[in-house]
This record gives sequence, structure tokens and C-alpha cells, in this order.
Amino acid sequence: MTVTTPAGFRSAGIAVGLKSTGKPDLALVVNDGPERASAVVFTSNRAQANPILWSRKVAAEGAARAVVLNSGGANCFTGDFGYETTRLTAEAVASALTAEGGDTVDAEAVLVCSTGLIGAGDQAFRDKIVNNVPALAAALAADDTTAPAAILTTDSVEKTAVHEGAGWTIGAMAKGAGMLAPGLATMLVVITTDALLDDEALDRALRRATDVSFDRLDSDGCMSTNDQVTLLASGASGVTPDENEFAVALAGVCEDLSAQLQADAEGASHDIDIEVRGAASVEDAVEVGRSVARNNLFKAAIFGNDPNWGRVLAAIGTTDAAFDPYQVDVSFNGVRLCHAGGPDRPVTECDLTPRRTRVEIELFAGTHAATIRTNDLTHDYVHENSAYSS
Amino acid sequence: MTVTTPAGFRSAGIAVGLKSTGKPDLALVVNDGPERASAVVFTSNRAQANPILWSRKVAAEGAARAVVLNSGGANCFTGDFGYETTRLTAEAVASALTAEGGDTVDAEAVLVCSTGLIGAGDQAFRDKIVNNVPALAAALAADDTTAPAAILTTDSVEKTAVHEGAGWTIGAMAKGAGMLAPGLATMLVVITTDALLDDEALDRALRRATDVSFDRLDSDGCMSTNDQVTLLASGASGVTPDENEFAVALAGVCEDLSAQLQADAEGASHDIDIEVRGAASVEDAVEVGRSVARNNLFKAAIFGNDPNWGRVLAAIGTTDAAFDPYQVDVSFNGVRLCHAGGPDRPVTECDLTPRRTRVEIELFAGTHAATIRTNDLTHDYVHENSAYSS
Repeated sequence: MTVTTPAGFRSAGIAVGLKSTGKPDLALVVNDGPERASAVVFTSNRAQANPILWSRKVAAEGAARAVVLNSGGANCFTGDFGYETTRLTAEAVASALTAEGGDTVDAEAVLVCSTGLIGAGDQAFRDKIVNNVPALAAALAADDTTAPAAILTTDSVEKTAVHEGAGWTIGAMAKGAGMLAPGLATMLVVITTDALLDDEALDRALRRATDVSFDRLDSDGCMSTNDQVTLLASGASGVTPDENEFAVALAGVCEDLSAQLQADAEGASHDIDIEVRGAASVEDAVEVGRSVARNNLFKAAIFGNDPNWGRVLAAIGTTDAAFDPYQVDVSFNGVRLCHAGGPDRPVTECDLTPRRTRVEIELFAGTHAATIRTNDLTHDYVHENSAYSS
Repeated sequence: MTVTTPAGFRSAGIAVGLKSTGKPDLALVVNDGPERASAVVFTSNRAQANPILWSRKVAAEGAARAVVLNSGGANCFTGDFGYETTRLTAEAVASALTAEGGDTVDAEAVLVCSTGLIGAGDQAFRDKIVNNVPALAAALAADDTTAPAAILTTDSVEKTAVHEGAGWTIGAMAKGAGMLAPGLATMLVVITTDALLDDEALDRALRRATDVSFDRLDSDGCMSTNDQVTLLASGASGVTPDENEFAVALAGVCEDLSAQLQADAEGASHDIDIEVRGAASVEDAVEVGRSVARNNLFKAAIFGNDPNWGRVLAAIGTTDAAFDPYQVDVSFNGVRLCHAGGPDRPVTECDLTPRRTRVEIELFAGTHAATIRTNDLTHDYVHENSAYSS
């Protein structure tokens, strides 16, 4: 199980015809309580999809009760019609949950997420979602395993993670295989917990977790318009964990999902961890790591199993971080190839054939460190992204 | 002719074995006066090659008399040994010019440029250059046409430009096919003129010209460590042109060379001009254009002849420029595909098969405009840059 591992949650995933393949494309996660605390982080891209515009309002209200997610269309730059589609989707979910009996559910308590092609979201798209929400709600189950598949786009595998705490648990599902570069969050992620924590504690823990996980995943430098990471807490365990312990566990879940996203990045043949050490600040370490992660010449070299340390230095030289470019060490997979402004060990000592690649950059400017996860630039990346919408 | 078109200049290009192909790889341009005014702009990358470190000192002194350029090795991150190689190269040129008779030439009046692989610059590299400078000087000629070929690396064609003014002329040669993204300058360029202008006037004109030409060429987002644009004036025409007229002519020459560099970018199958209009400032227009030029998903889509306007909006949404993302028009090759936050004309009306591609972005936020030149992301780009050093 995944988002239903913690007590107090049901989920479902069904196929409604949004994907031309006929695969599942509509998912729902419901928090059955007794508490309904939540925290959400959104893309920092100013170009935001209609579900983001809607969900920001829901998140501001607090008390989110459910999140409905579709693949097969981003509903971004689809105008007022697209926003109305999002609103109608939330209303349909609220009606279906209200029809279960119990209290009345407001549409404003339903988060909406969409993923797929920008510009896609016509009448047929709306009808397929809204008309099928009753069937989706009918499929809700506390032991559901179908939701993770329904949010995938070009992903090749489902991404899930679970953490067992002392009397409480965290469950999560994610999608993402391209357009992976964060502002705040990236990709679609739903995390559930039965821990008893309020909105503020969840928000602190979620921001702390995303800051060191999804925010440091930078597969292709391209920030999405639809990213949303949702954390829902049911309180069903009755246990209030130590806040720091919960935050560390949540960060672990998010790092686990980040590694799964990196490993499934479109067309990649190497998973590259760029570890920057000796930085004057964490911000400097992140800036330096990101400059390398976004350098196409570096990324193409790794694809060719070429430990091209010169391209690392050319990349970090464009940053404002504090360091002396002529006093930097650069290692590939444990072999130090550059030391003190010149070549060190022969590049022939370095084997880049394994998929997992580690680049270490020692700046000698301080005591801070950060690791940025990225991928190589491959023929398959170019192919998949030139054919995406056709 | 090229850099020797203006009166008062000689040049030469010979093969000294730096390139494994045996092609010409060492060039020299000499200003024979009567005046020796100059202006130089350098890469803004903090990781700078030894010839850049040397040439900055020469440029600060003024009165540059010659520029010697090699391909087949960048002499970057080669330590003190590499810097000494650059100094010895300048000394050898100074000695050879002094030996011609006339006044004594100082090494500090000789600019040095290098291009090729970072980290390359050993004893053999030094010997091939320094020992062959006398032969290079002996080949100097006022009607030389061999210099432009000797500075090429992965370039497929020579790049030259000439402008005929009223009694004065400008000549230029350039190299550059990858790592094309500017801070101040990009690639190696030597521009000569027989106009009678002082250092200050040349500097103003050169900065104005590079700002609207090389600085707006962003083929792959990767800034080089060795970029240098040199302007030498001999005053041999005896004519002092109107400064504005000269600046406009110089900008024209630089734009001409920029277009040639764009057209020869490694592996590219489309030359893309991103024209941003309606911006609140020129800086905003450049920032918006550059965000699109550096978006791999956009660049891969163009390779696939896919007018993916959604990726344009996702890219510009990451900028701080003043505009409303939901009030932007985006056109591809004259067909408006996005209007007011939604789809406009069908993408099927848009033909992206021609190599030249025009993307117009209307921000509706002001009256300023800028055009950024870039290229698509192709299989050949990945191939060429994964195999570069092997």
C-alpha cells in the first residue's frame, strides 16, 4: 500500500480515457479523519496551471479533505474554461463524498492536481473527469493500490514510499519523469500520515523536507507549471510524534521519492549526484551544484562516459558563490581529476560506465555542503522530448 | 580578405601540430599602425584561461600591437606552467616583430587567445607554439587569407565580415561553434579597422556592439572560459569617422558574425530567433528571451518540428520580468498559437521544417524589445559533445 498505509485514508485510481493508451488516469485520495490537517507546497513558476490556482485557495483555507489528480492533460493555459473544469471537478468530488453520508463536504476542501500537455483541457477532457468522479468515489478503498499508477505520465514505474514511526506512519506516492526542476516543489506528490499534528507543524516539516529533497532534484532545468506536493494528516493513530523526529522521517520519505524520480528521468542513462562541499553557505553549495546540473556540455559528456572536469569548472565559474576557481578539487566517482587549478589523476583511472555517478566538488571556502541530483543529456532525452506532443 | 582588409594590418595562419588533423592552428594579427588603439572584452566567467589572465593585463596597458591565437588547446586550468606558456608565446611574438627592424616590441603589447580542450597545455603544446612563432611571423602578409582557418575548432566554416565606411573599413574573423553563451563576449573574435579612433572611442563602440550581438547569442547556455573579442585600430586611413556611425557599423559586423556562429552551432538543425516585444525594459526582454533559449524541452521540441508554445510559457514563467503570464501572445513562424492565456490558432498551421525559426513573444508590458539567437537541441549536439574529448 502507499497513501493508504497510514490509518484514516482511502484512495482509488481508474481509467477514464484521458490517456490514449487506456491506462488509469484519474486518482483520488481521501482523508477520513478524525483530524484533517494539511500542508501544501506549489511550483514557484509564475505560469501556473488552473489546478494550481484552485488548490492555492483550498490550501489557504486549510482543512483539505481530499485530493483528486488526473494525468493526460495539464489544464494549464486553458483559460476561464479550464479553471471552471477544475472547479467542477472539485464540486463533483465534494458531492460524491457528501453522498456517502456523514457531514457535507465543500468543494473548497478538495485539492486538484493535473499533469500532461500544457494547453490540453477541452470539453471532452472536462466530461471524462467530471462524469467519472462518482465511479472513482465508488472505487475508494482503505487498502487501495491503484492510485499511484493513475497519476503517471511518461513515468516507467510507480513511485511510492512508506515510513513506520513509533505508533504512526507516513505513506506517499509521486509522479515525475521530465520537467524536473524545482522552485519550491516539483512533480505531483501526495503524502499521508496518521500522526496527530496540526497544519502549522505539518507546514514546517513539509517545507524543511522539500528544501533538502525535491528542491535539490534538477533533472533537466525545466520547471513545471503544475507541481504540487500535498501532505494530509488524519490523526487516526492518536499519536503526536516529536516534531523533529517527524520532520526527519518526512525528509527521508521525500528523499526516497526524489531518488526514484531521478532514476526514472526521461531518457537518462546516468543518475548523477553532485556533492558540493567546503561552501561558505548552503545557498552557495546549491548554486554551485545547480550550475553543473544545468550545463548541457557536462551532461552530454557524462552520457559519453567522459569525466570532463573542465566543463565542471567552466560551469561553476559562472556562479556568484564564494570560492577561488584555482583552488578547487573535482572528483568523479572517487578519483580526483582536478586539484589546485590543474589536472590531477589521469582521467583514464575513472570509470563512468555505472549508471550511478558521483561528482564531488570541494570549494575550500567554508563548512557547508549540499547534493544536487541530476541526469545526463542523452539521445533518448532529445527523442522523447521532441516527440512528446506528437 | 578579412582582418587585413583595413589598411595597416598583416596576418598569418599556419599549422604547427596542435590539431591532430594537421590543419592550421596558429594565427597572428599585427597592427602596423601608424596608430595602435585597441579595445578588448573578455568572458565574464570567473574560471578564466591563462591567455585571458595575460590579455587582461595587456588590455589594461593599452597600445596592443598584435594578437596571437591558437586552436587545439584552451590552456585553461593548466596552472603556473600554463601561464608561463602564454607569457613565452607573447615574448616570442614580440621578439619576432622586433627582429623585423623598426622599434622594439614588448611582450606586454601582445594579446594571446587560446581555444580547445580545458586542461590541455603541456610541454609539447608549449613547444609547438613557441618554437613556431618565427615561422608564423615570417608568413605575415598584408593580403593574408589564412588566419581565419587557423582559429577554428569544431567549426565547419570560416567566419569573416567586412564593412566599407566612408574612407575607412572594418574587417573581422571569428570562431565558435559550441559553448556559446555570453557574459560579456563569447568565442574568439578579432576585428580590425583603419579608422582613426582612440582607445576610449573603440571601447565605447565595442561594448555597445557586443551588447546587442554576441551577448544575445545563446546557443547552448554554456559560457566559455576563453572568450575574447579584440578590436584593433591602425588609423592608417587617416579618417576619423563619426563615432555613432562607426558604432553602428561595428554592431552590424558583430551581428553578422553572430548569425554565422549561430548557423554553424554544433549539431544544430534549427537557427532560432526569439524576439521578445512589449517588455518593460530591454533587460526584461533579454531575460525572457534567454529563459526560452536555455529551456531544453523547448529546444528539443523545435528539433522535432513541434511548435510547443506551452514550453515557452513554462520557461518565461520562471523569470522575474514584468508581465502577466495570462496576457501573453506567442507566435511561431508568424502563426499566433497562444493568446490571452489560452490556445489560439491550431498548431497544424505552423510549419517548422525550415532551418530558420522565428518565435515572437509579446508581453504587453511596455515598449522594449530584444532578440536572442539560439539553436535546437538535437541528437547531433548530444553526440558531438559526448565525444568531444575522446
